[in-house]
Amino acid sequence: MTLQAIESRHFRIPLAATLSDSTHGDIAHFDLVTVRLIDQDGAEGLGYAYTVHAGAQAILALIEHDLKPLLLGQDASRIEALWQRMWWRLHFVGRGGLAAFAIAALDVALWDLAARRQNLPLWRLLGGHDPAVKAYAGGIDLQFSTEQLLRQTEANLAKGFQAIKMKVGRDRLAQDVERVAAMRQLLGDRPLLVDANMRWSVAEAIRAARALAPYDLVWLEEPTIPDDVAGHVRIMTEGGLPVAAGENLHSIYEFKALIEAGGVAYPEPDLVTCGGITPWLKIARLAEAANLPVTSHGVHDLHVHLLAAVPNASYLEVHGFGLDAFMAEPLVLQDGRAIAPERAGHGITVDWAALNAAAT
Amino acid sequence: MTLQAIESRHFRIPLAATLSDSTHGDIAHFDLVTVRLIDQDGAEGLGYAYTVHAGAQAILALIEHDLKPLLLGQDASRIEALWQRMWWRLHFVGRGGLAAFAIAALDVALWDLAARRQNLPLWRLLGGHDPAVKAYAGGIDLQFSTEQLLRQTEANLAKGFQAIKMKVGRDRLAQDVERVAAMRQLLGDRPLLVDANMRWSVAEAIRAARALAPYDLVWLEEPTIPDDVAGHVRIMTEGGLPVAAGENLHSIYEFKALIEAGGVAYPEPDLVTCGGITPWLKIARLAEAANLPVTSHGVHDLHVHLLAAVPNASYLEVHGFGLDAFMAEPLVLQDGRAIAPERAGHGITVDWAALNAAAT
Repeated sequence: MTLQAIESRHFRIPLAATLSDSTHGDIAHFDLVTVRLIDQDGAEGLGYAYTVHAGAQAILALIEHDLKPLLLGQDASRIEALWQRMWWRLHFVGRGGLAAFAIAALDVALWDLAARRQNLPLWRLLGGHDPAVKAYAGGIDLQFSTEQLLRQTEANLAKGFQAIKMKVGRDRLAQDVERVAAMRQLLGDRPLLVDANMRWSVAEAIRAARALAPYDLVWLEEPTIPDDVAGHVRIMTEGGLPVAAGENLHSIYEFKALIEAGGVAYPEPDLVTCGGITPWLKIARLAEAANLPVTSHGVHDLHVHLLAAVPNASYLEVHGFGLDAFMAEPLVLQDGRAIAPERAGHGITVDWAALNAAAT
Repeated sequence: MTLQAIESRHFRIPLAATLSDSTHGDIAHFDLVTVRLIDQDGAEGLGYAYTVHAGAQAILALIEHDLKPLLLGQDASRIEALWQRMWWRLHFVGRGGLAAFAIAALDVALWDLAARRQNLPLWRLLGGHDPAVKAYAGGIDLQFSTEQLLRQTEANLAKGFQAIKMKVGRDRLAQDVERVAAMRQLLGDRPLLVDANMRWSVAEAIRAARALAPYDLVWLEEPTIPDDVAGHVRIMTEGGLPVAAGENLHSIYEFKALIEAGGVAYPEPDLVTCGGITPWLKIARLAEAANLPVTSHGVHDLHVHLLAAVPNASYLEVHGFGLDAFMAEPLVLQDGRAIAPERAGHGITVDWAALNAAAT
């Protein structure tokens, strides 16, 4: 299982409609970095990372200049050993951040290769708990009018979603309350989640949580900056809403600190931003041992396997970036649940011709 | 003061002798990324970042693709505003790590430009406490024989150093103890510092600290991984040696957590790895408010200004990478102290011809 070739590429993919949240502003495209591994028997593994607004060329540079030379010729089945080598190779410029994205793309490809060689779907290889995973449609819709927001939600319900996430963090809290109230009315007793993308100070977040509490929300996501652990604890206890957080945490250590302090009810690791499947699973175990569910962020075609593997799965975020358009077999929804596929590996087959056409 | 041009370059600089520590192995070269800014009046600012083993091309990619477009045409005198823009532009792939290095190179160049426009040396612009800064020679010498270690130290004393740092973290603790004992004998009552570069578990670090305590050390640096705040507290209290740490922390938030927990006696921010002069000064203030000195790591020609500016300066590390060979006016030592220069800005004039010749 010696690694013989590693091919990495960068695509800039336009979005059908410009999206927005409270921190990242308008998002007209996203960046995709792909990695293909080939071992000595010609077996393949596919991995990818995405980013918004910045860093794609740097992720590619880390893979090409720093990580590829480290992996070529190595035994692809020793994933934990390779992960540690990558982590320590990049440690001085790493401990998370951009390094996590580059390591993640390679780690996903290594797991895909391993599962395909065993002819097992990833979710079975990694534990095999339950292939039917609760899912929600994750809207990136802060600047939509209330009317657009409701129409988007109706379309998502028509697609089979039962749970919906919307953005909050408008300039005035009253606007958020009004929009959440309209959504609650449309949704009846279906699950509603909100995401503030770090917009607020701790005091503002507590005020917002209290104002939104009457609308029976599953969680309030990223109320403030991820660095403020004590602030998360205050928001949880004084605001009265469960907090989801984690897309901007980049290591098992950061998750441990937030979980241990009691600052999060729904740990939300993103395998791309936390360094891959290898650390994502460790974070899920940290959550399990703390009596917490684990949820996901982004890249739903990969996360469906991870949430299907572990016993403490909460919702899968089905994300709005539309990578599905470039895949042979998009995510399957049944009764509001995403179904982890039985194809070997992660089972994602990319339409390279379509990607090439979309790329700049 | 509109920014009109930004020029960034990457140099790979060979070291005269291969260096080693307990984590990074053999170091035969280091990477330098330079940034030159030019404003509408033709005034210039120079910044740089360095790295070891990995990440240089990625730092350059962040500057070229992500940060340069953000800064061109902006008012160069609003450094704090530009720093915040850079931090948030890279936030999703950042919060430290590689992003900190790229931001640092630009932040240093902005401060240099600002000080040169005011015809002030940086240390006066930033506070002007005391230009004579205690300094030590930082050896990267773990694999040197005891004999080589002592000869290197004699050479450093002959250059005017009064304080010396050596590496620890050999395979057996007894080797470390023997080497430290030999150094203490050579140095008499001069200050001796040791650096473990994260080699140990917490239990091993406590054991080592106790074994090294009889040799009157100023500090024990980086005994374990930077992610383990509680471990640092245990090493400080149970090991009985003051702990220095910070070269692998990348934000004001990480320093606040470690300082507040009582896990560090000598906070040691490196302006290159923490995002530049702007956050370095904030970390120095955090230390001051916690009744702690602040020290530095690497790039001594820049740090001499920062330690000369603040009231709670501890030692300046004079680093072994030999960038001095490419500078017109290297650091001045008097009675074991480094003297912050009176030249405008940081006062560093790079010999570009020599750099070009050394670069690959």
